[in-house]
Amino acid sequence: MSEGPPFPEGWRVERMHEHACFGVRVTRRLHTERTPFQEIEVWDSPHHGRVLLLDGCFMATELDEFVYHEMLAHPGAQTLEAPRRALVVGGGDGGAVGELLKYPGLEVELVEIDERVVRVSEEFFPAVSAGLTDPRVTLTFRDGLARLDEVAAGSLDLLLVDSTDPVGPAEGLITEGFYARVARALGDDGVLVAQTQTPFHHADDIRRIYANLARVFRGVWCYWAVCPSYVGALWTFCYASQSRDPLRDFAGADDLHARLGTRYYSAGVHRGAFALPPFVQELLPG
Amino acid sequence: MSEGPPFPEGWRVERMHEHACFGVRVTRRLHTERTPFQEIEVWDSPHHGRVLLLDGCFMATELDEFVYHEMLAHPGAQTLEAPRRALVVGGGDGGAVGELLKYPGLEVELVEIDERVVRVSEEFFPAVSAGLTDPRVTLTFRDGLARLDEVAAGSLDLLLVDSTDPVGPAEGLITEGFYARVARALGDDGVLVAQTQTPFHHADDIRRIYANLARVFRGVWCYWAVCPSYVGALWTFCYASQSRDPLRDFAGADDLHARLGTRYYSAGVHRGAFALPPFVQELLPG
Repeated sequence: MSEGPPFPEGWRVERMHEHACFGVRVTRRLHTERTPFQEIEVWDSPHHGRVLLLDGCFMATELDEFVYHEMLAHPGAQTLEAPRRALVVGGGDGGAVGELLKYPGLEVELVEIDERVVRVSEEFFPAVSAGLTDPRVTLTFRDGLARLDEVAAGSLDLLLVDSTDPVGPAEGLITEGFYARVARALGDDGVLVAQTQTPFHHADDIRRIYANLARVFRGVWCYWAVCPSYVGALWTFCYASQSRDPLRDFAGADDLHARLGTRYYSAGVHRGAFALPPFVQELLPG
Repeated sequence: MSEGPPFPEGWRVERMHEHACFGVRVTRRLHTERTPFQEIEVWDSPHHGRVLLLDGCFMATELDEFVYHEMLAHPGAQTLEAPRRALVVGGGDGGAVGELLKYPGLEVELVEIDERVVRVSEEFFPAVSAGLTDPRVTLTFRDGLARLDEVAAGSLDLLLVDSTDPVGPAEGLITEGFYARVARALGDDGVLVAQTQTPFHHADDIRRIYANLARVFRGVWCYWAVCPSYVGALWTFCYASQSRDPLRDFAGADDLHARLGTRYYSAGVHRGAFALPPFVQELLPG
């Protein structure tokens, strides 16, 4: 993030590959620290509320974090019958965990490599991170791959990968080896959901991710949502499983969003999200 | 666009209400001019190709203009039976006209207040603007409202409003008076489609637009697409008609995108686009 000329004071701007940028006007720096894994920043802003950046990339803004977190958590959870055990890799801000806690009886383990992301979120994003102190939630601060190897085969119903871009701490999370570990932990009936970048800037990543997934899972789908604070905005997610199907196994009624208290996700949005624009479909294995 | 500190050389950055910004790294300024209506800029960029700005706002980039233009043109056109006459207000880059020309037998009039937008697009965006020289296309350089009053009642099948933000030249295009003129020109069987801004930055505009539409049209729908070069990215469009229905009257088959040669629009995307996130639905009249 240090290349190129500086952006003006009063703006926090993320650059994507030195090709494009997204920025927010900020009024106050609330926190900065460099952990062994990354730089964490929290700023206040007039329209987006508080914003969280990791290594200079926007992770969450209070204005629109609900889109990403709802769309990561619910499409998988809604297609499982009474899910009991979920594991979230990454996602230290707690937003995805908060959505998962809307499923009674579901126990959630958050595996976050950087404890400081959790602690900073607890301090500065109390609403987003509220779920992290729920008695149904366990926090594990370590590498996601290592933790997955300890989990009993077939013991997870749902695994969410809420990771940064697949460089740095998250680069191991899109390999065939990682997906094979996930598949072992999920068994036949579990579901993996992971964020899989934007076709406008990461077409090669998407090709590689879905090719790797197809080597491990019998069923692989891509779905999408609009994340306005991520450069590229059209954000993709994978849904992968040996047996579950995100449309066949979805029975969401028209009032689903009212029952879940969601602002982006709904039964119609669930179904529509799996209708991929042709230029996205073309990136996936035939 | 002149408030606040300057952004660095080598980047062309649009600010939205001094709240957020989107920018593209540019390598060469190809054209700048100030017309009686607005400032027109064309730049070259390494990832987005050529980009067009009006009054400092991104209108089109070669990377993603297809999303906006396809989603403006096809949802309306696909729900009409053999449309014969379309009028496009604004849209001087020709992208929407190009999509409409995919309907054989359709004659298109482009009513653009600023002839220079058309001429600049013809020079610098030959692919996007290619349709403007088609024999089925008429160019009229004048105010959209004035032109609409000359059109015979019920003589249009489809009217697209491809406008800039509703300030400056486009501020008259979201009033009840404008919609009444449109309704007269369309008659009972025509369809109006217009871009209607983003809920992340223009919630009040959206409320006002749809309230005005509901006073004039018996059927009003909102649909959406993701436009990554517009700040907010979740872009809304209205579909309004006295008799047509964008879902009931849509019969698109699975190969629709292949037949149209579209990269974002497809039969599935058409249906999914009308599934609004609940936080968007809440802005519309109950």
